[in-house]
Amino acid sequence: MSALKLAARRAVDAARAARAGYRGGLVAPSAGIAPGMTQANLIALPRDWAYDFLLYAQRNPKACPILDVTDAGSPHTVLAEGADLRTDLPLYRVWRNGQLAEEISDARPAWAEHDDMVTFLIGCSFTFETALQEAGIEVRHIADGSNVPMYLSNRACRPAGRLRGDMVVSMRPIRADRVAEACTITARYPSVHGAPVHVGDPALLGIADLAHPDFGEAVRIEPGEVPVFWACGVTPQAAVMASGVPFAITHSPGHMFITDVPDSTYHV
Amino acid sequence: MSALKLAARRAVDAARAARAGYRGGLVAPSAGIAPGMTQANLIALPRDWAYDFLLYAQRNPKACPILDVTDAGSPHTVLAEGADLRTDLPLYRVWRNGQLAEEISDARPAWAEHDDMVTFLIGCSFTFETALQEAGIEVRHIADGSNVPMYLSNRACRPAGRLRGDMVVSMRPIRADRVAEACTITARYPSVHGAPVHVGDPALLGIADLAHPDFGEAVRIEPGEVPVFWACGVTPQAAVMASGVPFAITHSPGHMFITDVPDSTYHV
Repeated sequence: MSALKLAARRAVDAARAARAGYRGGLVAPSAGIAPGMTQANLIALPRDWAYDFLLYAQRNPKACPILDVTDAGSPHTVLAEGADLRTDLPLYRVWRNGQLAEEISDARPAWAEHDDMVTFLIGCSFTFETALQEAGIEVRHIADGSNVPMYLSNRACRPAGRLRGDMVVSMRPIRADRVAEACTITARYPSVHGAPVHVGDPALLGIADLAHPDFGEAVRIEPGEVPVFWACGVTPQAAVMASGVPFAITHSPGHMFITDVPDSTYHV
Repeated sequence: MSALKLAARRAVDAARAARAGYRGGLVAPSAGIAPGMTQANLIALPRDWAYDFLLYAQRNPKACPILDVTDAGSPHTVLAEGADLRTDLPLYRVWRNGQLAEEISDARPAWAEHDDMVTFLIGCSFTFETALQEAGIEVRHIADGSNVPMYLSNRACRPAGRLRGDMVVSMRPIRADRVAEACTITARYPSVHGAPVHVGDPALLGIADLAHPDFGEAVRIEPGEVPVFWACGVTPQAAVMASGVPFAITHSPGHMFITDVPDSTYHV
């Protein structure tokens, strides 16, 4: 086997091992795990809500770039052979009437409440972090071993059917002289949020204090660094809350689904 | 007004004038009309079929890149202020039980058969033709003033719900020494079909004779030119046929919806 093929197989093995660990009960943020393999946000809804959500995603593609949609009732995806979406993520959230009801590591009992759950897998900015790191741009939350900080912004998404809400953004502090590169590199990955939606002053996004993210963990910002904001796949959870969706299962922020698809697949 | 703003306004004026002409009864292929403005494929379906179609598009994004979806019952789109999707295209096709029933220039009577029609506007390869021409690559069907040739290929799309079908491709003959550029240029427009799906031998795509396209018109191929194939937004019409969809309204191949959105918007 060639060195390239061996490296590719090892990366898939790492993704499978991570999923097996989560299936076995391991709970931990997935940033930096199985490097080079695409991670995805997850939201599962009863079939009755699937059209509204798919339309919401289509109308807000920077925040909700869809990588795969399962058939109704199926917990399987083309993005990872043999994976079970009900168990293979580190942590799930169950939502009832727009409110967070519980956080669980095995979502099978919640899934079983409906026989027609449709699962949406949504691109995650972790995908372009490998490319940033390869360009020598530090990704702070990976360097510090923490979860990425995410904030509810004041930017309204375009509504669809019964769904509305504001955009959630992730933030990475970038050295001022590397901001332009961070923009051009991530722009090459449009199906995993693409280029930043905002660079600089958090107040303009309605964010009062970077030290208190709405999801994930705060990261340190060094002198000479600029906060750079990307659309985030937690946006559907904000829509679930704002729209009072009767029932939904999502990943817990930062605790993603790790696929068998290399990040490079989404490079254009 | 600056020269740039003036040029932009003139381009929008040209798009509006073209739509007004079609609304008034003009029937003609839209290739080369209102240069620099995005043209779109159209398919309208009753709401009952909208989820299956939106999922089909998500699963086959090269062939069916969605630019906008209307609310059920609305003939209006955010892509062109004041446009009426029932009248503002040069030519429509009405489909019944998977068969072409009629070709009409005013679709209002057909539209009125259902009060919940959902209209999908889908990216068209015309968008990247401007970029090809600006690079000095001749686009044969524009140079010759004909409709682009389109072929039903042997490549199956990924099914969704009740929808299945093969991919339709458009073909442009490109000089062998410009093929690589034609690939890289069009790759920068992923939401309007992006890079080619096939370069060279038509037989491998199941196309028996380039001189007899399934849609549009044949174009001449000069010595030293290679046939290059892109995924085509007529693919939904192939799905309507293959799946026996009870009722659909589409554009007639090559007779597109001209929007107020500059082609450059879809450059990544």
